[in-house]
Order: sequence, then structure tokens, then C-alpha cells
Amino acid sequence: MEHGKVKVGLIQTSVTEDRTLNIKKTVEKAREAIFLGAKIICLQELYRTQYFPQWLDRDVSDLAETIPGESTEVFSALAREHQVVIIVPIFEKDQSLCYNSIAVIDADGKILCKYRKVHLPQDPLFYEKSYFQAGHEFHICKTRYARVAVLICYDQWFPEAARIVTLQGADIIFYPTAIGWIKDAEPEEGDWLEAWQTIQRGHAIANGVHVVAVNRVGIEDDLIFWGSSFICDPFGRIIAKASDKKEEVIVAELDLSRNDLVREGWGFLKNRRPDIYEFLLNPRCV
Amino acid sequence: MEHGKVKVGLIQTSVTEDRTLNIKKTVEKAREAIFLGAKIICLQELYRTQYFPQWLDRDVSDLAETIPGESTEVFSALAREHQVVIIVPIFEKDQSLCYNSIAVIDADGKILCKYRKVHLPQDPLFYEKSYFQAGHEFHICKTRYARVAVLICYDQWFPEAARIVTLQGADIIFYPTAIGWIKDAEPEEGDWLEAWQTIQRGHAIANGVHVVAVNRVGIEDDLIFWGSSFICDPFGRIIAKASDKKEEVIVAELDLSRNDLVREGWGFLKNRRPDIYEFLLNPRCV
Repeated sequence: MEHGKVKVGLIQTSVTEDRTLNIKKTVEKAREAIFLGAKIICLQELYRTQYFPQWLDRDVSDLAETIPGESTEVFSALAREHQVVIIVPIFEKDQSLCYNSIAVIDADGKILCKYRKVHLPQDPLFYEKSYFQAGHEFHICKTRYARVAVLICYDQWFPEAARIVTLQGADIIFYPTAIGWIKDAEPEEGDWLEAWQTIQRGHAIANGVHVVAVNRVGIEDDLIFWGSSFICDPFGRIIAKASDKKEEVIVAELDLSRNDLVREGWGFLKNRRPDIYEFLLNPRCV
Repeated sequence: MEHGKVKVGLIQTSVTEDRTLNIKKTVEKAREAIFLGAKIICLQELYRTQYFPQWLDRDVSDLAETIPGESTEVFSALAREHQVVIIVPIFEKDQSLCYNSIAVIDADGKILCKYRKVHLPQDPLFYEKSYFQAGHEFHICKTRYARVAVLICYDQWFPEAARIVTLQGADIIFYPTAIGWIKDAEPEEGDWLEAWQTIQRGHAIANGVHVVAVNRVGIEDDLIFWGSSFICDPFGRIIAKASDKKEEVIVAELDLSRNDLVREGWGFLKNRRPDIYEFLLNPRCV
């Protein structure tokens, strides 16, 4: 695939308890991104519901949907109408099991691929293992406009995930996200937002890929989502960044030929030493 | 090993053509670090010679030394005298082969372990493959004061290396380095120094380790070494940083219990998925 230019759109919103309202607002904002020229649009993690994993043992079975299902139907129509790619995070139900998933809809409106979140946190206010089965596979999607990988939120802290999708051929890694501050808590370990941004910029540099993070805003019970959705280039430079409080649509042009510039100039991919990386498969947790 | 506090010392110097002068100056600065309370002292990459890999096809055979050899003898004596650990980068000759190596001298003055640089660049002004054989093994050193890993310069761009030594038990990763700007060149891909710092801060965050980078200063022919040696904590926060032009000795106290704080709070190590990381061993270079 030629490494040309492509406009991406990020939809950063707040989320209410009303799922119909959430989908309506998200469609409106996606239309805004399309109007601004976006060809690949990414919604935030679990875009249609509040971040329910902050509550333990809540019955959320009626919030889940199938793929294909209601969300993919709505966004497939939009994708087809405007010939755009849309990355749609979905609280997925498959038989009796649930996943934190993504459907990637290609510019012809068809579901091109699906990814189920691989790394799941289980921490205070982020009890994802209580709600989701883990996915077991990384892959990339060859969309009409670019080869993209979609990883989800907590995946963004794992260099392994970014590296694997790069080796599989990704030019852009999207990270739909739901992350924020905890109300009335002073984090002992340091600045969460800064660390969140830094590690993702690091993935961009290590892999010579563009990174796009899309996070929600607003306060939901004990969580204050920090927005700050951003795009960085393959040398970790922030190209665009959203506010930490407001809903926002960001559209920016990526020059994917910059991936080649970094990869050829610095040789990080060609100088890897997979012959001595076996320890990475070690289950040891330290 | 208890995760307590430990003072580390970084020696950032300029390097002349006179190898005797270089070693003398480095010993003086190491004494300064010892005086300031450092228990683990790290010298910069190839501390004793100018960065000769910028020149192709130079005869450097008389610059190489063995391990043990002249450098380890000098620093072993210093280590023993003051009961400190010293990390000594050495242009190593072993039989007819040369390596870009490190000897770690423990506080009793004995050589505790040796590491040979695994990832070698071969780019304009960094022709390392013309001078060094690559190493084939990662490991950590259980020194008297901390479990440390030493990786060397270009290794710092590879998340795999940082992850492997973390899984092996490292609490601090040291990166002796020789990196700088190229004279009269405007880097197309962006800010090298910023990317260099960012990716290493990313390793600290991903792995819950302290990271210590030690770089040289001064102009050597076409390279302007940017110094900026730094220490960051396991959440990527810069604790101490040296100038980009001046020789400097930095001594700072690390609180290794912060490693546990980040590791327990965020669970990046326990939530890895080595069962599906096999693709990392893929030799594909993209």
C-alpha cells in the first residue's frame, strides 16, 4: 500500500445513561468529522454506555449488543453513505459471553474486522475482568485508506501489543479509551495523564507508526474522564490534542510517508533481535 | 531483595583523543560522585575513547582492551576502596573479536558480570557493525545495592530489551550512551533528543523500573553529543537531568519501593499476555 496522506477524525464526547441519546450524539459528531474531511473516524471505547466497569456486580446484560448489531448497522450506513472508515467500539455479546470489542467498518459499509480487547485491568474502578472475556488475537485491518490496528485502552500500556500490530503491518494504531482521574484521590505514583501520553508516544517512536488515542470526557460517578485525545506522529510529536473537559471533534491529516522516514532513518524494525527475544514469552509476572 | 533507597551517580564528560587523560578525568569524577554518596556509579558508553564508530574503516585495534584489563583494574580498585558498584563501558577485545561491552564491578571490587551490546546501529556516523560483534544475551546483575540491568545506547530504542531485563528482575536499567546531533544537519523526522528521552521514559512506565541514561558531551568531528543524562522514576518522571553541553556529575537517590507502587497499582507485569506474544519472535522487519 502506498504511504500517502489520510485525514483521521476523533470523536471525544461525554456519555449519559441514555444509550439512544449517546448514539445520536456520536453520529452527529461523526458527520461533523466527515464534513471536515475525515476518512477514518474513531469513536471512544464503549462509546454507547457509561463506563460501567467502575461498578462491581452491576447487571449490564441489556447494554450489550452483537456484531453485527444496532451500532454496526447505524455506522455501516454512515460509512457507506460517505465512503469513510469508522472504528466502532462495542460492548459485545456473543452467545453467553461478553467482550470489550471493536468493529472496523470499511468505506463500503461492510464490517471488515473485529478485535476483542486482549489486556484487561482489574483494579478499583476498572473492574473489567468482572464484565469481559479477554480476546486472544491481534490483527490489523487493511481498510480502503490505510492499514490500521485498533487496540483498546489498557492495551496501550503494553509495548508488546504495539510491536505485534506493527510487525503485522499497521501504519496507524488507534486506541479507543476510557481513562480518567479518580474523584478526591491524589495518585501516589505520579501524573497519570502524563504517563498515559508518554507511553503511547513511546510506542509511536519504537515502531515508526502514527498513534491515535480517543478518550471520553465528563464525570461519571467516581471517575473524571480526562479527554485529551491526541494524535502523534511516528517520532512521538503531538500533531493534535483535544481538551481535557470538553466534547470535541478533531480532524487532522497524517502523512504516512513519515513512518518510512523514521523506520529507514533509525532502523528499529530491521535491527530487532527476535532470535534472542524468547524471554518475552515467559509467563513470569515479577 | 528489599526495595529500599539507593544513591546512583552519573558521570557525563567530554572525551579527548588522550586515553590516559580520559581515564584520569573519569576517575576524578567518580571520586566526586562517591564523595556525594553515590553507591552505584555509571560511566558513559565507550568512556575511554572518542566515538570512533562515526568514522568508517579506521584502525582502532590499539584502543580495545580485555575484560579484565586496564579499565576494570582501575575501577575495581576504586570500587573496593569505597565499597561502591561501578558500571564500566569498555571497547572489548576478546581473542580476535571486538564488542561494545560493559563490566559491572561489585562493591567488593570484583567483576560481577559483563554485557555485550545486542542491538547495533549501522547508519551514517554510527557505523557500529563495522567495529563490533553483537552480543547474544540479556541478563541482570545482583549487585550489593540493587538488581541492575545495563543496556547500551541503541538498545534504548527497543522495548523488548527493557522488558526482558525487567522480567529477569531488574530494578534499575542503566543506559550508557553516546548520542548527539549531526553537525549542520536538520533532522527531518523531528526532535531526536525529545524522542530519545520519551522512549526511555516509556520503558520506565511500562516496566515499573527506574531508568538511568548516561551520555557524553562535547563535539567530536561531525557529532555534537548532547549530554542530557537523566534519571527517571518508574512512572517516567524525570528526577534529575544534566546539561546538554557541560561535563557533570549527578548524584540522586532512588526510592526503589516506587517500582512496587507502580507495578502493584497498574498491574502491567501481571496482566501481560505472553500466551499470545509469539509474533514478537517473528524475524519480519516490515
